[in-house]
Amino acid sequence: MSTIPRPQNPEKNPRVKSVFEDIRATRKSDFINNLWHYLAFDPDLLESTWRDVKEIMTKRSHLDPITKELIYIAVSIANSCEYCIHSHTAAAKSKGMTEKQYAEFLSIVSLAGRTNHLLNGIKVPIDKEFNHESN
Amino acid sequence: MSTIPRPQNPEKNPRVKSVFEDIRATRKSDFINNLWHYLAFDPDLLESTWRDVKEIMTKRSHLDPITKELIYIAVSIANSCEYCIHSHTAAAKSKGMTEKQYAEFLSIVSLAGRTNHLLNGIKVPIDKEFNHESN
Amino acid sequence: MSTIPRPQNPEKNPRVKSVFEDIRATRKSDFINNLWHYLAFDPDLLESTWRDVKEIMTKRSHLDPITKELIYIAVSIANSCEYCIHSHTAAAKSKGMTEKQYAEFLSIVSLAGRTNHLLNGIKVPIDKEFNHESN
Amino acid sequence: MSTIPRPQNPEKNPRVKSVFEDIRATRKSDFINNLWHYLAFDPDLLESTWRDVKEIMTKRSHLDPITKELIYIAVSIANSCEYCIHSHTAAAKSKGMTEKQYAEFLSIVSLAGRTNHLLNGIKVPIDKEFNHESN
Amino acid sequence: MSTIPRPQNPEKNPRVKSVFEDIRATRKSDFINNLWHYLAFDPDLLESTWRDVKEIMTKRSHLDPITKELIYIAVSIANSCEYCIHSHTAAAKSKGMTEKQYAEFLSIVSLAGRTNHLLNGIKVPIDKEFNHESN
Amino acid sequence: MSTIPRPQNPEKNPRVKSVFEDIRATRKSDFINNLWHYLAFDPDLLESTWRDVKEIMTKRSHLDPITKELIYIAVSIANSCEYCIHSHTAAAKSKGMTEKQYAEFLSIVSLAGRTNHLLNGIKVPIDKEFNHESN
Repeated sequence: MSTIPRPQNPEKNPRVKSVFEDIRATRKSDFINNLWHYLAFDPDLLESTWRDVKEIMTKRSHLDPITKELIYIAVSIANSCEYCIHSHTAAAKSKGMTEKQYAEFLSIVSLAGRTNHLLNGIKVPIDKEFNHESN
Repeated sequence: MSTIPRPQNPEKNPRVKSVFEDIRATRKSDFINNLWHYLAFDPDLLESTWRDVKEIMTKRSHLDPITKELIYIAVSIANSCEYCIHSHTAAAKSKGMTEKQYAEFLSIVSLAGRTNHLLNGIKVPIDKEFNHESN
Repeated sequence: MSTIPRPQNPEKNPRVKSVFEDIRATRKSDFINNLWHYLAFDPDLLESTWRDVKEIMTKRSHLDPITKELIYIAVSIANSCEYCIHSHTAAAKSKGMTEKQYAEFLSIVSLAGRTNHLLNGIKVPIDKEFNHESN
Repeated sequence: MSTIPRPQNPEKNPRVKSVFEDIRATRKSDFINNLWHYLAFDPDLLESTWRDVKEIMTKRSHLDPITKELIYIAVSIANSCEYCIHSHTAAAKSKGMTEKQYAEFLSIVSLAGRTNHLLNGIKVPIDKEFNHESN
Repeated sequence: MSTIPRPQNPEKNPRVKSVFEDIRATRKSDFINNLWHYLAFDPDLLESTWRDVKEIMTKRSHLDPITKELIYIAVSIANSCEYCIHSHTAAAKSKGMTEKQYAEFLSIVSLAGRTNHLLNGIKVPIDKEFNHESN
Repeated sequence: MSTIPRPQNPEKNPRVKSVFEDIRATRKSDFINNLWHYLAFDPDLLESTWRDVKEIMTKRSHLDPITKELIYIAVSIANSCEYCIHSHTAAAKSKGMTEKQYAEFLSIVSLAGRTNHLLNGIKVPIDKEFNHESN
């Protein structure tokens, strides 16, 4: 159940149509996932969200595509965003993530969840050696 | 300020000494960061934490070392674990993370934070196409 | 699926009946949403929860009713409380929130989600100018 | 302690200088808070962050300025972003938030924190009446 | 650094004085921790917060005092509330929590942090056997 | 919907079979809940997760069994892990948690949620009296 209805025929709005066409062209696929359909209720929100997702996830190049998806999923797990977890896990698989990599990813995410709680509990002071100034 | 005092001369306990020696040997460094000093108050907690950190972060091999650190930091940022953020950002730098990679990492983490909040707000239904069964 | 069953005929308990009647009178509506039905399993919990929701959300007056709901939803999104998101988004709509306001609200919530992650990642030091003492 | 050093003389970079000048002009103030100084380490990150903060927090107009800050702070509290809490609480005060409004805001945020935990614990099913389709 | 200044001579306000005297009497101690001093800026917030802390943490009786503090700390760790972690860890110690109990508590909290992330990542479907109806 | 399919006949793998037999023996029950079935996709992840759950939740002995489950649920509520909330609430009930204890537990968890948000909002400085060194 969503807080807003799924817009019907969103591409009747030319701004929405333009974004949808760019999504299809960028991804070389006709499939437009629900996120974009729902965001079509407000073209400003749709345009600014797609602009940044396209810019960051498809264009930049200092990290490889699977690593970028794994970082995205890691944050989404910690924030309990179910849609984000599913959409980016599917994206990671489509970009070639193996089952072994996924299992290792899950073990790192859950190890971090564990030590995050342990350290937030004890509040260990931060070592001065971690300071960038001392490097 | 921590919830427990930093143990004095922790290596007088042979179980602690054994873990500390393994940390030094595994990392090829004499530096033992505060986390392990504080955990020395309970050798069970120290041993099981180090066992898993060593197993997951230093031994497995389906993801490269920098990617593993980035996944760790991503979870730690979302959980606001300041110690974890600093220790693993320092680790990522020492393993070769460039400034450009770090900036791109931060842009992905903050993009995920943004869409996590947007989608948790709207509660967009999950596309059936994301289902592994339909692959 | 809930962790406790929905109590049957909760108003047989006079303390529950009294709270339910106050909810109906305060809201000028016969509709009692599920939250209150489930809390009826423990009259103490029901009474103290309703007392504070009534006190804070319906009586105080330094912020307008829609603003109060938006603050409530913002926290609920960040905490991934699906029930709270739905009940208070419905409340905001019933109090007159427009679609444009909702879209702007979502853009602020997601911008905050983004900069929260960016700043928690970098741990920028807090400007002394923000200190109330210096105002 | 931050994960990156504060850039020295950031305005020697013309892209940074351009953003800083726009911040000063938009805010009608010479004060540039630390966030922007640190982001100057990566002009892409600086430009895209400022573009969206300016667009959403200073230009749009369906919610009043104090309400926008309160929404921002609410998310930041739930995400434990200390810098964000301080910078936007200072902004809300500078825009005229009274002490009574702030106390009421805090009571709403903490009430939401309370019911979020209560409902996430019980997992009360969502009332069909909250569905936008039934409105 | 706090968002509000610490009120000077808060007990000049009779409502604040009354709460402070009740705190001292309830706890059989002259020490009033900072939380109450700061909340004194708004007597409504002070009274309602103390009323509930007193009611829940000192009066009710189906769980023993140390267990109640451990539940409180567990939530506070997951929410990264540093003040709450420190104040309730100190309270648990003063009520007799041993070092062994604290170490075991930390191991449970961090185990939960680990499996929370693992299960939020995989989204394992909930067993029908967990349903209270089937008990 | 899960991110991985439920493995069919997982006990054909001898490592999985060994873990499942240990779960049955430890719990004196034939019921293996979904978590373990799904983790069977990666025997490393299955073995290490069960090893720690068994070690911490069934063997150690400084806290009573219901208290241990309550700590686990408290963290899981704050992290919005629905599966964990259901499985450990069911476990607490099976270990004898009464309805009154559960209601009191929920009131503590939600009180902590409330004060966590209040204190994270105000950022009250931590009392020096909480320091273990001063005890």
